[in-house]
Amino acid sequence: MSLLTVGSVAFDKLETPFGKTDKIVGGAATFITLTASYFTKNNYLVGIVGEDFPQEMVETFQKHGVDTEGLVIDPNGKTFFWHGKYHEDMNNRDTLDTQLGVFENWTPVIPEKYQDTQFLMLGNMVPEIQYQTLKKLRNRPKFVMLDTMNLWMDIMLDDLKKVIGEIDCLTINDAEARQLSGDYSLKRAAKTIMAMGPKTLIIKKGEHGALLFQGDRIFFCPALPLEEVFDPTGAGDTFAGGFIGYLAKTDDLSFENMKRAIIYGSAMASFCVEKFGTERMQYLSETEINNRVMEFVQLASFEIND
Amino acid sequence: MSLLTVGSVAFDKLETPFGKTDKIVGGAATFITLTASYFTKNNYLVGIVGEDFPQEMVETFQKHGVDTEGLVIDPNGKTFFWHGKYHEDMNNRDTLDTQLGVFENWTPVIPEKYQDTQFLMLGNMVPEIQYQTLKKLRNRPKFVMLDTMNLWMDIMLDDLKKVIGEIDCLTINDAEARQLSGDYSLKRAAKTIMAMGPKTLIIKKGEHGALLFQGDRIFFCPALPLEEVFDPTGAGDTFAGGFIGYLAKTDDLSFENMKRAIIYGSAMASFCVEKFGTERMQYLSETEINNRVMEFVQLASFEIND
Repeated sequence: MSLLTVGSVAFDKLETPFGKTDKIVGGAATFITLTASYFTKNNYLVGIVGEDFPQEMVETFQKHGVDTEGLVIDPNGKTFFWHGKYHEDMNNRDTLDTQLGVFENWTPVIPEKYQDTQFLMLGNMVPEIQYQTLKKLRNRPKFVMLDTMNLWMDIMLDDLKKVIGEIDCLTINDAEARQLSGDYSLKRAAKTIMAMGPKTLIIKKGEHGALLFQGDRIFFCPALPLEEVFDPTGAGDTFAGGFIGYLAKTDDLSFENMKRAIIYGSAMASFCVEKFGTERMQYLSETEINNRVMEFVQLASFEIND
Repeated sequence: MSLLTVGSVAFDKLETPFGKTDKIVGGAATFITLTASYFTKNNYLVGIVGEDFPQEMVETFQKHGVDTEGLVIDPNGKTFFWHGKYHEDMNNRDTLDTQLGVFENWTPVIPEKYQDTQFLMLGNMVPEIQYQTLKKLRNRPKFVMLDTMNLWMDIMLDDLKKVIGEIDCLTINDAEARQLSGDYSLKRAAKTIMAMGPKTLIIKKGEHGALLFQGDRIFFCPALPLEEVFDPTGAGDTFAGGFIGYLAKTDDLSFENMKRAIIYGSAMASFCVEKFGTERMQYLSETEINNRVMEFVQLASFEIND
């Protein structure tokens, strides 16, 4: 099945306890589409970059089978830039600089051949842009997934609720789920959020795994205990890309298959954090992915025999 | 198989966002032995209480098949008392009062008929007392498990390391694992701690589940997402009691069986937090326990089919 990913394609400058980078390519849509490319063949990318964006990265997308017709290169501006520094525990980070560049006044344009997409991933960005993107598709995709963040809950809550009311699956972290629902209990928070629209909700808990909710059903997806988290940037996007990529590949929206999809998403996220930026996501083999998924099976499987 | 539990039998006075209690019976050994009684028949209890301890609770132990010959009632002192208040998120608590009473100068005495115990659970208390208790057994039990806390890492680290060097299984929470190992990565922390002695390590993560480590093997046990955590007091002890009780019942120390044991421990802990103190742990049915375990199976099971 085809998957359209819409979101930021950006430069990141990163500082972690393990080192620093210069400007490297990042952005939600970058991580999502690269990751999904390991699962589904028809990958469409809608985003915008400036004149400073490296042609090699466009070629990297293409090598991964990502159609880049929807990636606008604006010769009159700069690519969205984020400079962040992670704390020792890697769970918190400070934003040192943000320059929106061409991303600031962007209105996504959907190429004609993307109009038939069956799966749509709306990466984290201004909720109104997410909404407009969805409305620009002539046929509503069979599965629409959206990622967002606490910032939009703080300053654009009504817009966020409007788009959340139109989607099939929302992915947020545990603190965001608590903020959006006003409830500390994640089980009750999930009910409140699903009542806003999405039938499926994924609550990401970082090193503690993720919870998949749908109606009264819950699945607890573990996270692989890692010796080292080198750079957490993009982990959530990689997770989302693995999840929706697997769904698009299998074209099966049953809860049982979503469980598998979330395991694949977690496996992909566990690769992402091993190196800076998208480095690890550019050269994965099918064997590596399958072996990593088997580690999750080992980690989580048990049998009650009495 | 027989299980000897050694530790505090106490009074707790609790304040949670949901209410307050007067003095109610608590203590690590209380929660552990009551919980284990649902699994194994030969339960021995070694502890000390004062003249103020209610006879009805002694009878409650006995009704659960717990042998109370080892529970000393000191007519000249008061039972260990703890007064605590939980914060809104239930993950943090303040100690408002602690009165050690007869627990202060206690030296455990092991009744003759407890000497043949095959399983030993050393509840959280002064490490030197845990060590002496172990040394008082003529035959080393086949499985010795120990619970401890950050306080002893702060003030009695050498004593703690001495007893940890003698046991088979240690259970601590994630913050304590990081403190004891000096390593933020739980995977590396586990290696460091297992090198101190115990072949098996359980790292408890509260609402995020628990990790079971043994050699290179890791099992991630989920926690049941709950609508309400009414009172977390005793959850860790209940978890330990369910774990070692199940091991004692099945007399199977394989890693596969320990996975089952940790699921049973988690199931028992999920009951414990539903009511104040030991209330929920006094009247459980086998059906309730089995149904709760099936919820864990539902929550955690998935199948990778490609």
